[in-house]
Amino acid sequence: MWRASVLTIFPDMFPGPLGQSLAGKALTSGVWSLDTIDIRTHATDKHRTVDDAPAGGGPGMVMKADVLARALDAVPHDTRPRLLMSPRGTPLTQARVAKLAHDLGAVIVCARFEGVDERLIKVRHLEEVSLGDFVLSGGEIAALALLDACVRLLPGVMGREASAAEESFADGLLEYPQFTRPPVFEGEPIPDILTSGDHGKVKAWRRAEAERLTAQRRPDLWAAYLAGKKPEKGPKSTG
Amino acid sequence: MWRASVLTIFPDMFPGPLGQSLAGKALTSGVWSLDTIDIRTHATDKHRTVDDAPAGGGPGMVMKADVLARALDAVPHDTRPRLLMSPRGTPLTQARVAKLAHDLGAVIVCARFEGVDERLIKVRHLEEVSLGDFVLSGGEIAALALLDACVRLLPGVMGREASAAEESFADGLLEYPQFTRPPVFEGEPIPDILTSGDHGKVKAWRRAEAERLTAQRRPDLWAAYLAGKKPEKGPKSTG
Repeated sequence: MWRASVLTIFPDMFPGPLGQSLAGKALTSGVWSLDTIDIRTHATDKHRTVDDAPAGGGPGMVMKADVLARALDAVPHDTRPRLLMSPRGTPLTQARVAKLAHDLGAVIVCARFEGVDERLIKVRHLEEVSLGDFVLSGGEIAALALLDACVRLLPGVMGREASAAEESFADGLLEYPQFTRPPVFEGEPIPDILTSGDHGKVKAWRRAEAERLTAQRRPDLWAAYLAGKKPEKGPKSTG
Repeated sequence: MWRASVLTIFPDMFPGPLGQSLAGKALTSGVWSLDTIDIRTHATDKHRTVDDAPAGGGPGMVMKADVLARALDAVPHDTRPRLLMSPRGTPLTQARVAKLAHDLGAVIVCARFEGVDERLIKVRHLEEVSLGDFVLSGGEIAALALLDACVRLLPGVMGREASAAEESFADGLLEYPQFTRPPVFEGEPIPDILTSGDHGKVKAWRRAEAERLTAQRRPDLWAAYLAGKKPEKGPKSTG
């Protein structure tokens, strides 16, 4: 069983959307488990204080290293990676998601306020992970996204109704356009090739479309894709 | 009031985590509103079918353009941007979030399965937005993240307890490290400069740390930051 432990001051946000759909069924059937640890229960004062003013001044509050350390230390010691959702972290990729899904699970710290005391990150060896270059009000929704991405890759979760092999990023490309009935929608037909029954042509068209979309929308991914491909033939080969 | 309309086959996932904390208080107090439109109620058959097999074959199912179009057309016509959460979209940035927060709101389509019929995206002019280079089981958690990022920027939501001006990406840099009491945590002291009381030195240290972190962790952001700065002095200026 893939085990997630989430440290948060908003435990009621979990499982939230992960209690439904594929992730919810997999949670009920024991494919994965989810423990939420309420950080406040590890505060030692009467007011259950988890934050304090930043050293050096400035707006906002900073989550206390001592309280978070106690909360982390209450999670069973094992080899699961310890992640901190943070816009300062390494941007999450599908490759990292796939590796996490193959691990035993993940311990995820959800920060609030202006972030957490840097010493906690250092001393407890937290891996800072970012969803992207935007700021959320806390790590909780980022944790939900990361968990959803991981859980759908666990064995038996997606079943036959979806495919991880043909989706965006699986081969370094964005996914090709999809179409379904009706054959004509508001004057727009499905491309002929997709209804031709010629599987080879369909495959080639999809590949070309995925390459076209990636080159057009994501020059960064396209450059990485080209760099990773083995050179086959020069573009002006006469062979 | 900033108005969000979300089209989904899982309306119970909303407001979910956005019903709590800052976003929840702002929802209750009328700073923003959230309508969820159940896409299935716009299906016309007995089984409330929203998806069909992909033209050209392949695994999974594709969301039907006709059903989604009816669901979209039931949302009041106004100038709000119409977004489709999709890993094929433009990666979300804090600049896009800030612009969305200054608009009237957003209409967000949450896809499931292998995606939506391409003709819907074209004919209804949907803007494809991606959280990052990973795949979720649907657009719902991505929509929650986008809404959270927008709502916290609405006037009056963050108040004095946080600051949008000094956080990651506000000036193109990752945020500097934060520290708070205790003065020493597991042998690690707070850097002297932060407790020196010299505000000028604190400010300079934070700037240098933000630059160091950005250069080290995110060469892409660092290059953009350097390109956007007005040239001041050459590195070997003798002036």
